[in-house]
Parts: sequence; structure tokens; C-alpha cells
Amino acid sequence: MFQEAEIDPKLSQSEFKKIEAHLRVQLINEQYRHINLKDRALLILIAGIDGAGKGETINLLNDWMDPRHIHTVAFPDPNDEDRAYPPARRFWLKLPAKGEIGIVFGSGYTPLFKAAARKHQDIDALEQNIRFVRRLEANLVANGVQVIKLWFHLSREAQRARTEQLLSNPSTAWQVNKLDLKAQKKFESIRRAGQLIIEATDAAYSPWVIIPSADPQLRTVRTAQAILQALKTAAPKVPKFHDPARQSPLPPAAYPVAQLQQALTLSKAEYDAQILQLQNRLALAVRSKGFKKQALALVFEGADAAGKGGAIRRVTRAIDARQFDVMPVSAPTPAEMSRPYLWRFWGHVPRRGRVAIFDRSWYGRVLVERVEKLVSRASWVRAYDEINDFEKQMVEQNTIVLKFWLDVTPDEQLKRFKERTHSPFKQFKITDDDWRNRRKAKAYATAAKEMFAYTNTLEAPWHVLPANDKHYARVEVLKCIVKALEDAQR
Amino acid sequence: MFQEAEIDPKLSQSEFKKIEAHLRVQLINEQYRHINLKDRALLILIAGIDGAGKGETINLLNDWMDPRHIHTVAFPDPNDEDRAYPPARRFWLKLPAKGEIGIVFGSGYTPLFKAAARKHQDIDALEQNIRFVRRLEANLVANGVQVIKLWFHLSREAQRARTEQLLSNPSTAWQVNKLDLKAQKKFESIRRAGQLIIEATDAAYSPWVIIPSADPQLRTVRTAQAILQALKTAAPKVPKFHDPARQSPLPPAAYPVAQLQQALTLSKAEYDAQILQLQNRLALAVRSKGFKKQALALVFEGADAAGKGGAIRRVTRAIDARQFDVMPVSAPTPAEMSRPYLWRFWGHVPRRGRVAIFDRSWYGRVLVERVEKLVSRASWVRAYDEINDFEKQMVEQNTIVLKFWLDVTPDEQLKRFKERTHSPFKQFKITDDDWRNRRKAKAYATAAKEMFAYTNTLEAPWHVLPANDKHYARVEVLKCIVKALEDAQR
Repeated sequence: MFQEAEIDPKLSQSEFKKIEAHLRVQLINEQYRHINLKDRALLILIAGIDGAGKGETINLLNDWMDPRHIHTVAFPDPNDEDRAYPPARRFWLKLPAKGEIGIVFGSGYTPLFKAAARKHQDIDALEQNIRFVRRLEANLVANGVQVIKLWFHLSREAQRARTEQLLSNPSTAWQVNKLDLKAQKKFESIRRAGQLIIEATDAAYSPWVIIPSADPQLRTVRTAQAILQALKTAAPKVPKFHDPARQSPLPPAAYPVAQLQQALTLSKAEYDAQILQLQNRLALAVRSKGFKKQALALVFEGADAAGKGGAIRRVTRAIDARQFDVMPVSAPTPAEMSRPYLWRFWGHVPRRGRVAIFDRSWYGRVLVERVEKLVSRASWVRAYDEINDFEKQMVEQNTIVLKFWLDVTPDEQLKRFKERTHSPFKQFKITDDDWRNRRKAKAYATAAKEMFAYTNTLEAPWHVLPANDKHYARVEVLKCIVKALEDAQR
Repeated sequence: MFQEAEIDPKLSQSEFKKIEAHLRVQLINEQYRHINLKDRALLILIAGIDGAGKGETINLLNDWMDPRHIHTVAFPDPNDEDRAYPPARRFWLKLPAKGEIGIVFGSGYTPLFKAAARKHQDIDALEQNIRFVRRLEANLVANGVQVIKLWFHLSREAQRARTEQLLSNPSTAWQVNKLDLKAQKKFESIRRAGQLIIEATDAAYSPWVIIPSADPQLRTVRTAQAILQALKTAAPKVPKFHDPARQSPLPPAAYPVAQLQQALTLSKAEYDAQILQLQNRLALAVRSKGFKKQALALVFEGADAAGKGGAIRRVTRAIDARQFDVMPVSAPTPAEMSRPYLWRFWGHVPRRGRVAIFDRSWYGRVLVERVEKLVSRASWVRAYDEINDFEKQMVEQNTIVLKFWLDVTPDEQLKRFKERTHSPFKQFKITDDDWRNRRKAKAYATAAKEMFAYTNTLEAPWHVLPANDKHYARVEVLKCIVKALEDAQR
């Protein structure tokens, strides 16, 4: 695959001059079409042999296009703060909005290339990481981020010559860094790693393009052409992505809960006794030394008036207000709409040692957005896998993910709606939307049932709780949380 | 001021029960009025004697109110990443939106109290910091953030008794931390520091409330009442804030530039030679060791078609794309509208070692927002001071702030508009707005003139450049930047 690049092809000054002007006009015009259309974001991942002139080329393109709509980010080795979150978070948070171009140096591929360049590779870990990257890219592309990946390549001799030339002139020597010098020594292993990873991660929807880099003019032209092509072609389609190696989900959570279970109640006295004791255990668990290396994400879902807010308050009561965040989830903002839908939740993933509470969540995509037809069928079908991946990443970072569905029967819901309407203390809690949603109860029930079938994973199982009796439901929520925390600290 | 608190008043259980229910209903109702009205944010700063039960009280209030609209944040000692920016940045970025409540532990007051508690105080530094906090609060209140400050206080004996009682029970001992124990020893100096700072920073628009804290019930009631009162009263007015100790601005920058100067031009050959040499110096300066401890903020203002974009590209060409960010400034988003207008710029203040380029800027408030009457007269008049403070904070953090006004004459602007309309390569650059703005040229000129009178400070002076000749203007911009960087590294 590096054949062409390793003969170090060149473009003469006169050929370059002939192409340049036209290429620049095309590029700026296509960029503006992209800015005005706002139908997708373009993400350009940069990799390749150190010292091949990646930075130089990107700087030139920033100059050819409108740099106000290009965001170039580099991800150096993660620092302590980065490591307090799942590794992909910092990458997600920097995703460009629709109409923008993001250029990324040192993406999630950096550790991949490093691992593949090792003498003794951990093949299993490598394969797992490759699958992860493939899934992530499929997710991005399907959600409006077009991805192209550029590998800057040249022969060993050309790399050496280029480095020496830069070093020989004091006004260019700063362009050479330690990595470039190291690259000479390790050329063969870097080359092999590149080949392996490129082959494993090349896809029609997120292709690799090899850029011959020995000659600056050809390098520039090829890079510009690759970007131009990406901007010109229609947003790529992602084939339905099924990965047989993924952990299969558990059997669907039992929903709706049986009438027998809905009859479970707790007297005020029992409730008071149990809840205080559970809150005390919760208070100790989140303040323990062990929890400093963990995190807790709590998802509350359920129909309107199912008692989510009340349950959340029984949880937060036991936790220091400085240690938790509650995210009430409603309709996305314009900035959120212009990125993949998980983007806004990545900003609220809990840091190590903290508790994040979601009052409604990313499951909105397969509940309200599905039922209200706010997104295409393909979008919400795909979301099951995307959500499982998202939660898995939290779990792998030592986050305990607990998902609660508070289940009320339609009769009980109606009773609560009426109560709210008549209570001066609660009437702010009921809106016209609530009555409208109630009329769609059947569609919501179907959506919930499917959600339980596809997202009840080993890593993050659903807890479907009978919630006709508020006391019972609140105690069960606390029991689940306390058990999970205490188990994890054993 | 601590007299009442130090007799450690109590509320009996029966009195508390009488008040509690009513207080809670009032509090949740007022919170919802606040949420629905969205006319301001409420910021509650928490301070006081360690071990007075601050955390406990705030947790209880989170429980009494709707915690989904309360954001409690603690600011521990700044880490390396925090220190790469002006100190107030992390605080600004966490400001609550209108309709929300923010509770802040360890705000900008923490260093103030610490400094005031020292045996040998640096009175000048202390006074300067006090003035800074007062100005910051005036800024927040004037821009839609209501501020109240709670000082939790109790007598030395009560503090000791409370700490011992908590320590004696394993299920409450975790509530006591090292600071609480230290507070016993240093009680007198903490008390004195509190008194000094409270007296110096109490203001009608951001009042301190002393909360007697020996008795948990009275402490809770007083805290709830303070918040209730804040929610109930109309948003406070900030008196025109004039601080005679502030650095006076330089004389106004000369605007518009004289016809003689507008006649300055550079031939293509001169331009090419100079610009390359300047870009090379810029490239070296931003890659130097010295720059790792500095930062650069570039502001570009000027009429439509003044050549801001072109000048910016001549600058970015010399800088590695990974080292700069360009922020094109247009109308604020809803999230931005619901915070003080400087909030969105705080998110783009350059980190140490980086370059932030603003294509239009915070000066929008005193230009377009003034001319188009998007804000009240009081708002933009106040903004001059707020902007000077903002820039000063960057400068104090070793950031070089350079502000460029590219000045074109109306005739030249018209010529460029026509060119744009007819060029296939540039027509995306011209919109109906541009023609409309042109008709308001007089009002914009008045606004610009006043801006130069009030914001031409020693720390961040304006560079008003003749820009009828693009070559000349671009070279001047680069000269300014290179000179500032090279001077700073001497």
C-alpha cells in the first residue's frame, strides 16, 4: 500500500503552479458550500511517519481555506485530569459542529500505532482496540460527522534527507522534534504498524488516504485533493454494523412489572426506618477511600409522574452537594443538534470520585425521539449499539452505571396527574405535554420494551422497579445503589 | 457583626416544626417562579468558620428545593491546568444560567480570607484583591447574576463541641476534616479575617448574611430565609461603579486615521519581502521557550470588508495550526444570552503557550449591540470598564493582548463590496447585512470613537491601522505582533 509513496514521487514547480490556483479556488468554494449547507461536519485525522511534514501541510491548508471554520486540535499524552474520565471523552468533546472542519493530530489512533509497533504485541488487546475504533467511526459517520484519515508517508531515505535539510537551516530547525529523529531508527517498525492498522481500519465510510510526502508540492496537492473529494461527495452511508465479538446483552428486563409486584408497598414507618439506614450506607460508600477511584452514573427513566424527581432527591440527600451533578435532560440545544447525539452526554460523564445523575438520559433517542418521530428509524435502531458502547466505556473506566426504570400503571399515573393539577405545591410539575404523552402510552410502552431487549447489558443492566408505591420504589433504588457500591468496594 | 451568632442561639424542635413546612413550600415555589421567569441567575457564595455545618446545610437545601436546577461547585486549590489561565476563568465558566441557582464553595474569596488571616498582611495586595472582587460582583449583578454571600458562624466553644460530637460517632466522623480541626487553633485569626473581608465586600447589591450555625435547626432556617429573600426581591440595581484607584486609560487612539496615512501603500515586491521575514520572526517567537509561559490574544475589529480575515490568515500562516484557535464572533447562542456577555469569551481566553485570535470580539457590546440597540444604554456604558477589567486579567496572567482596528474609508469599502459581489471566489463573503450596516456607518463611527476613548489602556492599547491598502495593513499587523512578542521575551 506504500508502494507509490516509497518511490518518493515529485511534482515540478511548474506543474504545481498550474494546479495550485484552481485547487485553491475549488477548496475555498467547497468549504463555503459546506459551511452554508451545514449538513455534516468533516473530521480529518492526521497520522503518518514522523517528519513527513504533516504539520506544515495542515498549516498550509489552514491558509488556503477559511481558518475561522477549521479547528485543529492535538491530543498529547493524557494528563491526570484526562485519566479521570473514559479515554474517548476528550476526543468527543472536541468534535466539530456541522458546517465546520476538525483536524485532529494524535487521535485514538496514537495508542493503536504504538501498540502495533511493539515487538511483542498483545494481539487480543489490539484487536479489541481496532474494533473499538471502527465502531466509534461508524457511530460518528452515521451521526453526521464525515471522517477521512490521512497517512503521510515517504521512504526511509527521504525521511532522513528531509530531517537533515531542516536541521541544517536555523530558521527551519525548530520544525524537527525528538520524534522525527527517533523515527529514523524505528522506521521499519513504524511502517509495519501503519500498514497493519490502516488495513484493519480502512472502511468505505471512513477511508484512509496515503499521502506521498517526500515532495512538499505533491504532498500539498494530494492532501488538498483528498479533502476536496471528501467535501464534494455526498455524506457516506454506514452499512449496518454488527460486531459478533461484542458481549451479547442479557435477556430483556421484565417489563411492565407484574400486577403482583405493583402491589408491593412499604408503610411510612418501614420506609422511614429503611431509607435512613440506606442513606447512611450510601453516604459512607461515596465518601470511602475506594470510591475515589470509581465513579457512579445513575440513569432515571420512566413515564411522566413516575416519581423520578422524588427518587433522585432521596439519593442526593445522602451525598455531599459538591460531589454530585444532576442533569435534567430535555430537548437538545442548536449546538447539541449539530453534533452526534451522544456528544452532550459525554460532557456530563462523571469524573472519577463523583456521581452523575441523569433525570432522563441518552435513552431519549429510543423513547421520545422514536415515538415522536424526531429521528429516522435507522437512527434509533442504530442507537441501541451506540448506547451500549457508550455505557461500556464508562464501566471500563471503573464507573458503576445503574439504570432505573420507574414503572407506574396508567391508573396510578392518572391519579398523580390529577393530584398535581390540584396541589398548589405541585402544579408546576404538570404541563400540556404530559397529557399529550399519556395519549401515546402504547407507543411508549412498545419503545420501552424494545429498549429493555437491546440495552440490558451485563455491564449496565436495567432495574425495572414497580413504582405505584413511591416508598417502595425509593427504597429499592437506594438498595440497588448501595449494593452496587458496596460490592464494588469489596 | 458576629454578636448574635456568637451567643449561639437555638431553635427548639417544636418551633422548627412550626416553621419548616411553610418555609419549604415557599422555597420550592419561589424556586419554580425563578425557573419559569428566567430573568436572572442566583449565585450563592458559601464561606464561614470551618466545621460550622456549611456542607450539611447546603445538602439539606438541595433536598428542599429541586436539585436539578441547583449546581453546587467547589473550587479546590488550583491545579497546573487551572494556573495556565487567569484565576477567575474557572469561576466564570461555572456561572449558572438564568433560571438556575449556583452554589459556590471556595470562590475567589478563599485566597482573600487566607491573606487576611496572615499575621503579616500585604495590605496593598489585599486592598487590590478586595477591589477586584467588588468589581467582579458588580459586573455579575449588573449582567443578570444575583449574588448573595453566606457566612456560617458560631462561637469557639460551640465549634469545639460540634467537632467533638461529630467525631464521637463513626457514622458522622467523616464530616470532620483536617480544616475543621485546624479551625479550633486558629479560631481567632479566622474570625478576624472574616470580619475584615466581610466589612470590605458587603454591598447592597451583593450582601453578606451571617448565619448563626451552632444549632442545626436555626442554621437551616436562616439559610433558607436568606435564599428565599433573595429569590423574592427584585433583581438588585448596581450603582455606577467608579474605582478611582484604577489605572486610567491612555488618551483615545487616533480614529479615523488621517487621509495622509491612508495613502500609505506597499508594492507587491516590498510586501512579499517584508511579510515573509515577519512571518519567520513570528514563527520563531511563538515556538520559543519563553512563549511557553506567555499567551497571545489578538483582537481584530473594523468595518465589514476591512480585511480582518485576510490579516488573520497572514498571521495564522506562521503559527502551527495546533497552537492557535480562531474564534469568529457572531450573534450569541441562547446559552450565551442567559449569562453575562463576557462568559462566552472566557471560554476562549488563551491557555499559557497558545494563541487565541478573535475575528470580532467582546467589543461587539459597544459596537454592533450598541448601534443596533440590542442592549440598554446602561449596559454598553458599563461595558467599557468590564472589558478593561477582563483584558487586564489576561495581561496579569502574562498574556499579550493586542487589539487591531483595521480602518477603511467608506469609498474603499464600497469598492470592495462591489468586487465581492462580482467575484465567484468572494461572493460568499457579502450579505444583505453588510449593505445595511454600511448605511449606519455614522453611528458605527461614533461608537468606535467612544470605544477608543474608553478602552485604550496601558495594558492593552488599540492599534488603529490604515487599511485602504491591504498590503500595508497586513505588514503593520505582523510588525505589531512580532514587536510585542520579541519585547516580552527580552
